[in-house]
Order: sequence, then structure tokens, then C-alpha cells
Amino acid sequence: MLELAQKPPIAITQGDPAGIGPEIIVKAFREAPLETRGCFVVGDVATLRRAAGVVADDGVVMPVLVLSDAREALNCPPRCLPVLQVDAPAVPLPPAPFGQLSAQAGRMAGDCVVWAANAALRGEVAALVTAPLNKAALSLAGAPYAAFPGHTELLQSLAAAHQGLKVDQCPVRMMLANDELRVVLVSIHMSLREALAAVTFDNVLQSLLITHRSLSALLGRAPRIGVAALNPHAGEGGLFGLEEQDIIAPAIAAARLLGVHASEPQAPDTIFMRGRSTPDRSGEFDVVLAMYHDQGLIPVKYLGVDKGVNVTLGLPLVRTSPDHGTAFDLAGTGRADASSLVEAVRVARMLASQRG
Amino acid sequence: MLELAQKPPIAITQGDPAGIGPEIIVKAFREAPLETRGCFVVGDVATLRRAAGVVADDGVVMPVLVLSDAREALNCPPRCLPVLQVDAPAVPLPPAPFGQLSAQAGRMAGDCVVWAANAALRGEVAALVTAPLNKAALSLAGAPYAAFPGHTELLQSLAAAHQGLKVDQCPVRMMLANDELRVVLVSIHMSLREALAAVTFDNVLQSLLITHRSLSALLGRAPRIGVAALNPHAGEGGLFGLEEQDIIAPAIAAARLLGVHASEPQAPDTIFMRGRSTPDRSGEFDVVLAMYHDQGLIPVKYLGVDKGVNVTLGLPLVRTSPDHGTAFDLAGTGRADASSLVEAVRVARMLASQRG
Repeated sequence: MLELAQKPPIAITQGDPAGIGPEIIVKAFREAPLETRGCFVVGDVATLRRAAGVVADDGVVMPVLVLSDAREALNCPPRCLPVLQVDAPAVPLPPAPFGQLSAQAGRMAGDCVVWAANAALRGEVAALVTAPLNKAALSLAGAPYAAFPGHTELLQSLAAAHQGLKVDQCPVRMMLANDELRVVLVSIHMSLREALAAVTFDNVLQSLLITHRSLSALLGRAPRIGVAALNPHAGEGGLFGLEEQDIIAPAIAAARLLGVHASEPQAPDTIFMRGRSTPDRSGEFDVVLAMYHDQGLIPVKYLGVDKGVNVTLGLPLVRTSPDHGTAFDLAGTGRADASSLVEAVRVARMLASQRG
Repeated sequence: MLELAQKPPIAITQGDPAGIGPEIIVKAFREAPLETRGCFVVGDVATLRRAAGVVADDGVVMPVLVLSDAREALNCPPRCLPVLQVDAPAVPLPPAPFGQLSAQAGRMAGDCVVWAANAALRGEVAALVTAPLNKAALSLAGAPYAAFPGHTELLQSLAAAHQGLKVDQCPVRMMLANDELRVVLVSIHMSLREALAAVTFDNVLQSLLITHRSLSALLGRAPRIGVAALNPHAGEGGLFGLEEQDIIAPAIAAARLLGVHASEPQAPDTIFMRGRSTPDRSGEFDVVLAMYHDQGLIPVKYLGVDKGVNVTLGLPLVRTSPDHGTAFDLAGTGRADASSLVEAVRVARMLASQRG
């Protein structure tokens, strides 16, 4: 309790109101009261009231507590949902229909993220947990949101602006983590052909430095970084590609000069298995650097997506999210699983406490 | 026993004598006497005697039974190792030193495969299980072996010659299988850049047809084939690449006209998780078609390589192998695990019995 009293609260953004975000948030507060202590929702009160109705348990609907200030979340009574209304419209709008793409829903989702990110940058919230938004809805919302493929790029832009930097001076990387594996990705949302081109000395070195810095803060020591190769068998001595010799190994050498503990490029088909930590055996690495989206996400998701957490590294704020999307087909049924969101809250709290 | 009496024996090739092949073979015969009934080793008697010494159990060394004809394996007494000597040298050579690359070892490994493949093509053995060879040793061995990157290409060449066909008229595909997942690969041993170029209409269609034909024989019905996309999020409607729309979906449509049950291209990061069969839940697909080596091998190997089996599809013979290499660093220690080899024997027997 002492810790909570000293730390600012954790903001959970509601995500796209037509998706499962609002209802998994209500479930998280109900099913994980300890983990969600000191958290509050940045969103729309009417949307969250509807979600509370959808996931009502034996007719018991969790009451919504409307906050006027984020810090009130620290003293919120249990068994209620603390919500800070963003963008209260002059005339209240009904919540966006479940499962439908709309500009209104996209804008609402974006506005919540902008509010929470700025609050985090000002130090008023300790961390940011983002429920899923819909990329197509964000695009429909028009300027400024249409310019951002997703949360990560939007947060990067806000962080850069806050620091007076250009966006490319504020590099970020996506980390996916579950109970047994942490993976950082050199690139994310682009074709595999473009991802190959993005395996450059600068990008690999930057990925290693960001991973080292972020995981050092998390673990309290330099992480052992396993570096996946790009090609089968790590290029088999140049027979199956030269990127290992020409790009990845030199970037590793440069990173080592800066104190980074990184492996040589390892065969991609076994490095993730080697990096797994199970109750029987701890993994060979604290984190694996993957050269492209699916190389890293296939193993992270292989055992199921219920517990996966997405962490954005490199930002001057803590941001985590569940490792799934808006699931428009499930929205409004109350059947969506809140485990990944609860895990995202747990990881956010741990990362925020490490930041001291 | 009736079945064994009617079927020809199963040949196990010893692999590179400097690697773990010979010792895991001895272990397999000792630890899995039922599974290895009716099997025999194609190899070098001195090398296998040494292996029997290495893995001796409480001082008990498995005796080597030297066969003069493959069919003698069907009536081999238990607790001994039936070996057919390949290429008996005029002056006996000592076995290749453990863990050392050599042309002699590479040639011996290759000769065993050639003998066993030709016996299988003539119908004298029911199936071929290959212990690992070392690609570099095979290359050192010179002509004809240096031309072949590995088992698969060598077998393909022998099968084509046997049928009077050109090699490209005898297309094969690699399937990896473990307890919960089967994966077929569009391409294998090439750089990721070349693998991208190998995702063509013809190659994808051919992969689907070979998968359909081989798995139909195995399952007794048309398999449900899950087709992995090439790009993240299956291309996100063209935003992250066009190969799904331009190449993969048309190949699937063509295959469906021929009776193949194949899915649309699916997001690579979740298709393998969806294809997993566990005791709790059967997978959505009988097999997943992966667009390149690591896409398919990362999930197959993620839970460990002990039980993985490699099956070559499209050959006019049954061939399986364990899903690991020669492990030169372990050779001679007796510590290598025979599980994957035993599993390869089990799958080979099942496939051979399906061929009627």
C-alpha cells in the first residue's frame, strides 16, 4: 500500500469501443482486484457502463466510478470501475455499435491514447496499458490518427514531440513476452521483402542497444541477448545468405564494445526453443532479438495468446498491451478472455517500479 | 509378427560415422526393441561396434550381427544389432575419429544412403530411416556427393534416375512432424531472399498437391491443409505485401479445383498455434504448409527437438529421419538422445504400412 501511495496511478486506455477492450477491462477489474489496484480507465463512461452490463456476473453489474482527476484512482474503493471521461461530447453520444468499424470509434480510441500518453510523459501516470484499437477505424478517423499504423507509432510521435525530437530520433522496438519467452523485433508492420531490407547495421545495432537498456532496467543487470540470424542455419557459413556475416555480426560486435551481452547470430529454428524458460529449465537467454515480425511472433504465440504481453521499448514512458486485437466478432458477447490484459497490467506495474 | 513376415525390412542408414548417428542407432535398438523389430543398419561394422561400446549399459555391449542379406533382419534375434556392411574395404579401415570432418566419413555416409535408397526403389526394403550426415563432410567426399546439399536432394536424384525422369520431374517436399504438429515446407536450404523468390504459383501449387497426395495416403482421407501466408497479418489486405493475393491465393484456388482441401492464406504468427493438436484439443488443420524453412521449423522445434521427425514427401519410397544433426560435439560421449530416431522408425513403419 505504501508503494501505491507513492506512485502515480496506472492508466488503462479503453481501446476501440466497438471491440472487446471495454469488456475485458471490466473483467480484469473484477477477476484481478489485486493486480488492478491503483489503475483507472481512460475512456468513455457510457461505453464502459455498457461493457459492465455485458459481462455482468449473475446479474451483478460492476458500478462505474467517474473520476475527475487521475490521482483519485489511488483511493478508489474495490469492486468498482474508476473511469476518467475523455472528450465528453456536448451532447452525449450512444456507444459505438459492437463489431462495427467507425470513424467515431477510431477517434475515441485515439483520443484516449493521446490523453494517457501525455499524462505519462508529464509524470501523472506511472504507466500506460492499452486495450486494443482497430487500425482501420483509426485510419477512418482522419487526421492526425490516419497517419499512424497503430499504437506504437502514435506513442513514438507523442514522445518525440514531448522531448522536442524528430520521430526518427526516438527509436522504439516492440517486445513480446509471455511466461517463458521474451522477444524483441527489429521491424514490425511491413512486408517480408521490406523486412529483409530493414535488416541493416544501424537497425540491428539500435535494436540491441534499446533491448539492453530496457531489459537492464527490468532485470537489474545486463540481459543475455540471443540474436536470431536472418537465414536458415544462420546462413550455413555463407551458403544460404550473407546477411549474418555482412550485417548482423558486425552490429553485434559494435554493441559488445558498448557493453551489450549479445550472442553471435544463431540458427533461427532453434534459438527460440533454447531461449524458453520452463519450470524445469531456465532459458539460455533473457531475451531473443528476432529479425522480422513472424520470426519472433510465431514462437511467442505458439503456446496460445492468452498470456502474451506487448511492451514498447525505447519510449520515455512505460507502455504495455495485451497481445491480441479488437476481436470484433467476439465484442459484446462477454466471452473474451481478460488474461492477457491482466498480465499486461502486471508487467506495466513491474516496469514502472523498476523506473524508480 | 504376421505383418513383419510379409513386409520387407526397414533400413536405417548409419549417417556420418564421426557424428552421433551410430550411437543413437544402438540406443534405439536397445531402448525400443519393439519399434526396431524388423529393422537393420546399413553401415560399417567396425563403426557400429565402436558405437555399441560407447553406449554400453553397465558394461553390457550390444553384439553386432553381421547380415549377408537384408531379409535376414526379419528373423534377427532380439538384443543384438543387425548390420549390413556397405563398401567393405580390402584392408579394414579404423572408424572415423569422433567429431572430425572427413572425406572418408562423408563418403561412407553417402554410400549407405545410396545402397539403402536403391534397395527401397527395388522393393527390397520397406522404408528408409536416415541417421544424420554432415553436409560439409559430404561435400569433402567429392563426386558424386559434393553436388548434393543433403539427403533430400541425393534421394531425389536417385529416385529420378530409377524412374528415368529428370530431377525436376520428381519434385519432393520436406515434412516435419512431431506429436502435435505437421509442417510441409515450400522451400528449404536457401537464403531467405531466395526463399521469397521461390514462393511462385508453381511451387505453391506443387507443394499443395504433394502434401495432399502424401497425407491422403497417411490419413486415409483428404487432409485439411492450413496454408501460411508469406507476410505479417497475411499481407493485411495488401498493405504488407501482395504475394498472398497475387501468388498464394491463386495457387490455392487451382489446387481446390483438383480436390485439395486447403485454407486461404492465414496469418503466419497464429496458424501454427491453431494447427497444434494437444490432448485437450485437436488442431484446426492436419498439416500446415509453410512458405519457407524457418517459418515452419521454428514452431515444430519450439517445444524441443527430441521427438521431431523429418519425412520426405513425393519420393517413390518411404524416407524418414530424426530432426537433428550430427552433433559432433556430443559424438562419442554416449549422451545423445535416441528419441527422435525411434520416432522416425515408428513413422516410417506407419507410412510403409499405408503404402499397402
